[in-house]
Amino acid sequence: MKPKLFNYFFSGFAILFFALSLQTTAQETEKYKHLSSDLVTIFSKTLQEERKIYIHCPRPDSTNRNKKYPVLYLMDGESHFDMLCQYTEYLSRWDVDKMPEMIVVGITNTKRTRDLTPTESNLNYFGKPDTSRVSWMKPSGGNEKFLQFIKNELVPYIEHHYKTQPYKILAGHSFGGLSAINCMLTHPELFDAYIAVSPSFWWDNDYLLTLAKRKLPQIPLTNKTLFYSDASEGISDSSSFHTNLLKFDSLLTNSAPAKLNHLYKYYPTETHMTEPLLAYHDALRFIYKDWKKNDKGH
Amino acid sequence: MKPKLFNYFFSGFAILFFALSLQTTAQETEKYKHLSSDLVTIFSKTLQEERKIYIHCPRPDSTNRNKKYPVLYLMDGESHFDMLCQYTEYLSRWDVDKMPEMIVVGITNTKRTRDLTPTESNLNYFGKPDTSRVSWMKPSGGNEKFLQFIKNELVPYIEHHYKTQPYKILAGHSFGGLSAINCMLTHPELFDAYIAVSPSFWWDNDYLLTLAKRKLPQIPLTNKTLFYSDASEGISDSSSFHTNLLKFDSLLTNSAPAKLNHLYKYYPTETHMTEPLLAYHDALRFIYKDWKKNDKGH
Repeated sequence: MKPKLFNYFFSGFAILFFALSLQTTAQETEKYKHLSSDLVTIFSKTLQEERKIYIHCPRPDSTNRNKKYPVLYLMDGESHFDMLCQYTEYLSRWDVDKMPEMIVVGITNTKRTRDLTPTESNLNYFGKPDTSRVSWMKPSGGNEKFLQFIKNELVPYIEHHYKTQPYKILAGHSFGGLSAINCMLTHPELFDAYIAVSPSFWWDNDYLLTLAKRKLPQIPLTNKTLFYSDASEGISDSSSFHTNLLKFDSLLTNSAPAKLNHLYKYYPTETHMTEPLLAYHDALRFIYKDWKKNDKGH
Repeated sequence: MKPKLFNYFFSGFAILFFALSLQTTAQETEKYKHLSSDLVTIFSKTLQEERKIYIHCPRPDSTNRNKKYPVLYLMDGESHFDMLCQYTEYLSRWDVDKMPEMIVVGITNTKRTRDLTPTESNLNYFGKPDTSRVSWMKPSGGNEKFLQFIKNELVPYIEHHYKTQPYKILAGHSFGGLSAINCMLTHPELFDAYIAVSPSFWWDNDYLLTLAKRKLPQIPLTNKTLFYSDASEGISDSSSFHTNLLKFDSLLTNSAPAKLNHLYKYYPTETHMTEPLLAYHDALRFIYKDWKKNDKGH
């Protein structure tokens, strides 16, 4: 028996050694360097609370250490900051070259509905009073205060600590889209371009459509840019989501100052949550459609 | 003079203190956590050289520690790894939910033309002999050896070290697209789905179109998926780039086994370098068009 057992053992070891010698092993394992960004916590005097802000800067340009960049301010930073960093980085690569390098500032939420709605309202998505006991709709109506925070605290902070050009974009989705358009209507001087992906016009009985009707003919929007879009919302839930976008688009076409650059995109085969992937890309391409690398300014 | 000077100083300090009290300061600054991925260096016996590989895994699922994931193998990792990580992460989020979480493996280049072309050739983009003294076209024709590296070394390495499902995708752009289709034709068993963004059919007098014509009627492609696309190449340079894609699409429609799922997308307003942003997204959506979260398998 002994020689046979020995043979078994020997052939087993031989197979093991053979397998080990075939197996590919890593010479070295380290961490891949994805983009690098800051997370700063600032105390807002306007909002009387701490806010977490994500900030992504392009890699330093060794040939131009004083290079300055336009800035994109993004609401719902926790949802879409990575996406916008990826788009601005890729589209500004030297071999892609469709827009300038850009600083991306992602504002994260504390009380989202409070900050991103223009009025206090208890009307739900279908225009009925919200009767749920614990409602995600409360509190609401703090958008003006939130915009004051952006204007008086966040923008000065970014412009003090980072190498910024004056050109600024405000971008948001859903309630964030509502806020972008509210900002354009009530503080048109604050940003140069606005991106509103599926803005929630349903808020408070279409409050923002009424405001737009009144404000659009009066406010200075020359050379400003606005991109707005929606997806399958109005189809999938038989709501007025899509017809509201059509009404807004018609208002802009009929009442807005002639020199506002605006584009409406409709993505009927996308959902409320897949749409940002396409819409944020298309919005950047629209804002920079006439951009040439060596243009002055942004 | 003294009191006046004192007053100047005093008012200067007062303004400084006032300004400091207004300025928003960060309570805390740290690094934002973008995705986390590995960079491993492995020695390939087939290629007789070290290769750097990027590997991104979904965040561990605390409710299912043995969860396994399909794997996307991406050529030109240095160009498109971040993009594919971003797409697979976003589209698999619980609130987006259009595809399963996925491991992304980015293969970076050493000698790109050598590895990603199926034959040795000196014919350039317009089918003329390449006469440049230092040519990016040399050496060429090593794709079979590169696919052997993927098959015998890289895939076993990934499956040994990471929690993989059997479902595998091979994705590439330009020469990488050529390689994806060459792999499907010559090793159809190796991957379940192939993504070929602007494949360089022009290589060696349309070598791969001729191969496709011969191979397509014979090879087993049941339940396999193929996405292929092109952009403005044929328009912008009056080459046969676009007509080659049309020929391939017609071959597939006429000669391929009935059960191959295939989709051709044409992006005439995109360039060779902007196209991957749209095409890789659309390819993932196509591969997973019928995916439901609780499906078994991938």
